Amino acid sequence: MKGRTAKAHSTTNGGKQMKIDTNITIFGGTGDLTFRKLLPALYTMVLTGKLPNASRIVIIGRRDYDSGSYRRAARDWVEKFTRLPFKEDSFLQFAEKLYYYQMNFSDINAYQGLDAYYREQDIGSHIFYYAVAPRFFSVITQGLKEVKGSENGKVILEKPFGENLASAAALNKELEAHFGARGIYRIDHYLGKEMVRNIQAIRFANPIFTDVWNSRYIESVQISALEDMGVETRGGYYDASGALKDMVQNHLLQILSIMAMEEPGEMTPKGLHDAQLDVFTSLRQADEESISDMLVLGQYDGYRQEPLVKPDSKTETFAALKLFIDNTRWKGTPFYIRTGKKTGMREIELSVIFRRPYAQVEPNVLIIKIQPTEGVYLQFNIKRPGDTDDIIPTKMDFCQNCNLVHQLNTPEAYERLITACIKGESSWFSQWDQIELCWNYVSRLKKLYSDTDLPLYSYVPGTPGPGEAERMLGQGEHWLL
Amino acid sequence: MKGRTAKAHSTTNGGKQMKIDTNITIFGGTGDLTFRKLLPALYTMVLTGKLPNASRIVIIGRRDYDSGSYRRAARDWVEKFTRLPFKEDSFLQFAEKLYYYQMNFSDINAYQGLDAYYREQDIGSHIFYYAVAPRFFSVITQGLKEVKGSENGKVILEKPFGENLASAAALNKELEAHFGARGIYRIDHYLGKEMVRNIQAIRFANPIFTDVWNSRYIESVQISALEDMGVETRGGYYDASGALKDMVQNHLLQILSIMAMEEPGEMTPKGLHDAQLDVFTSLRQADEESISDMLVLGQYDGYRQEPLVKPDSKTETFAALKLFIDNTRWKGTPFYIRTGKKTGMREIELSVIFRRPYAQVEPNVLIIKIQPTEGVYLQFNIKRPGDTDDIIPTKMDFCQNCNLVHQLNTPEAYERLITACIKGESSWFSQWDQIELCWNYVSRLKKLYSDTDLPLYSYVPGTPGPGEAERMLGQGEHWLL
Repeated sequence: MKGRTAKAHSTTNGGKQMKIDTNITIFGGTGDLTFRKLLPALYTMVLTGKLPNASRIVIIGRRDYDSGSYRRAARDWVEKFTRLPFKEDSFLQFAEKLYYYQMNFSDINAYQGLDAYYREQDIGSHIFYYAVAPRFFSVITQGLKEVKGSENGKVILEKPFGENLASAAALNKELEAHFGARGIYRIDHYLGKEMVRNIQAIRFANPIFTDVWNSRYIESVQISALEDMGVETRGGYYDASGALKDMVQNHLLQILSIMAMEEPGEMTPKGLHDAQLDVFTSLRQADEESISDMLVLGQYDGYRQEPLVKPDSKTETFAALKLFIDNTRWKGTPFYIRTGKKTGMREIELSVIFRRPYAQVEPNVLIIKIQPTEGVYLQFNIKRPGDTDDIIPTKMDFCQNCNLVHQLNTPEAYERLITACIKGESSWFSQWDQIELCWNYVSRLKKLYSDTDLPLYSYVPGTPGPGEAERMLGQGEHWLL
Repeated sequence: MKGRTAKAHSTTNGGKQMKIDTNITIFGGTGDLTFRKLLPALYTMVLTGKLPNASRIVIIGRRDYDSGSYRRAARDWVEKFTRLPFKEDSFLQFAEKLYYYQMNFSDINAYQGLDAYYREQDIGSHIFYYAVAPRFFSVITQGLKEVKGSENGKVILEKPFGENLASAAALNKELEAHFGARGIYRIDHYLGKEMVRNIQAIRFANPIFTDVWNSRYIESVQISALEDMGVETRGGYYDASGALKDMVQNHLLQILSIMAMEEPGEMTPKGLHDAQLDVFTSLRQADEESISDMLVLGQYDGYRQEPLVKPDSKTETFAALKLFIDNTRWKGTPFYIRTGKKTGMREIELSVIFRRPYAQVEPNVLIIKIQPTEGVYLQFNIKRPGDTDDIIPTKMDFCQNCNLVHQLNTPEAYERLITACIKGESSWFSQWDQIELCWNYVSRLKKLYSDTDLPLYSYVPGTPGPGEAERMLGQGEHWLL
């Protein structure tokens, strides 16, 4: 009988039921995400005291483990991927919370067993982590209807949320029906990144930035997320998605909205959410005439020969966008977005380019580095040292993760996201109405691009995309990353 | 006959007169200033190509050198004090320009000889450097009336310009009578410092600073110039002067004026000069009621036992000022000045403290470090790294002289000042009308302080002055250096 191995390691202790405040169920417990990210994150949360004591982690997978053998496997992964030094006693503390429950989660009939297993314990609240391919989201949600108490729990999902807007909407409806809108925690990794979380602080806790954060002072904003790698083993997924859906529609538009939003009336998840939403509704819509100025798509040479990629694929591996936000603050200031694979760089960086005080000098530029360096840089002008009054640009820098102390204190995204979910801090996750707006917006761009027969530009691997992405910038502008 | 040694090394070359474009005459050529500063500076100017080829340096002193022996002495000083590596060939090139002319420059009758000496040569323009005690300024100026062409030359003076305003005004009149107002180059070393020269660039070439540079954004400005040393061997001079006259009236008020001035209508020496002058005329005058809030004077314990200091001296070795500039830009923003000897620090630093966006966070602070570090620092607020939304202050930094490349390119003040004088760039020097205003202003403060019987506070050597200097600041404010 499935589930037996878990029962053998149940938390009943000599007949006495132990109270579990937080029960974290991970579906897909033998996959890469769990091994490489979730287990090391949860281990670190134990090490740093972030995981509540009375919590338990139940790993659900089809493979033939029991809790003992799973813990041994987990040990290897944690030791390999932990970002903090591996400590035997912390791992043991972590392992004690770790249980394996073997079941075929795509079998709707298997959930009664899970229900029975959980009924044996006194569980305060549930968190379900769907660390599985999106095609299983629906069946798991169906199955959980059998698990009493799950409807009051939270569910954590990884993107993509469906393959198109219709399927995403259907999935969302299903999830909302079971968990309620407030129970759904959709991970956008970028929202968990330290420096993305920092944008608000930088904007609103610093008068020297707050009051110049508008089109009167800011000439343009650049959001660049470049990858060195190609699609590697993810050709199947990626080819059905492309850069716009994989990066722009979610991560980069989220960042854009935090960079561009008005100061939230109240610093609550709802205040933030509403302020972001206003940005999305103010995005200037493309039409057949403007689309060629607004979007450049590219595909790296050799992409079609990658494993699992269609030999005639028209999927973009690069996208550059020039967007406008039609409101008072941003009148006339373009927001440029650029993302791509095999660009020869692996960096995520935001640049706020201020207007020049006069023509001969370089602009002030505020750079927020998100990855791999986390930091803030300010390009400003000084007198050239020495016997001259020439003005030259230089940089002030603050690097958050360049020294070890800070590095140690910067939790990785997953630790943060799981912690936020436990605390119910929804602002770390993306919300459906935003997703829907962004999806619509990007889909429309892509359709117009295709309808007007704009070319999919090729580019040489190791270069930052096709030259057209450079030409879409304004006079005298260039990509700073 | 005096002057013979110089003749023996005159620049006549086999009867053929050599054209000298710039003839630099240094009075006091065997003093500390010349040996430690001027010769190394002039040597470096040769090394770096800053000294015009057809220039000559004539050293005037009473001691028994000839050009040959003086060059040998100069070699030792240059080797010891040069900031760039000593190069034999550059030194030889420099030494060829170096002549010694022995004369008693306090003897008015000695100048006919100098005139005769110079008549032998074809001299384009004269620069006279008064590297002597101020009591000789007058006699040298008198003597130079005998030297034809000197009236079209320039004169470089070191402070102090007289012992009080009356004597300074008399000296100025005398100098102007011979050289004209535009021929007088009064050295204020602070104006030659790289980061002081940089204030204008930082203020006016950076929109993020330019537009917040006013009392709406800036809560206060601090100008601190602290010295670790006491009066050492300069007790005689210092005891007749004190911190206000030695530091505030010239250097620190000059810096204040550059920090506070309106953007000059034109970026010329005159434009700058007028803008600075406007600041001085807008300084709020003290009266008997306000003086105790505006000025704190201190004297370090043990000062009266220093060599050459009067045993009952009431000279201040420390001064702290709270000044207001009564114009639209600076309404309500105090400018704090603090300077002193034996304060346990050796640093000059300017801090622009912005208003807090809300009470719980630290202010943005722009720090311009002048000495010994040259750099720009911006204290701003970020989110505390990790699982929190706490706001904490951090610093971006740009250090100009922290790496060797920049260090090599930062000329020392004297090179810069001599170069500026050669080029006629008067904005590097202080102007009489400014001196007069500042002198009046500071004298009045000091008189009010004394008239109202405010105490000369004692302070322990190695501490940053008396506690009263801290108490004069506003609520919640503290000295940042």
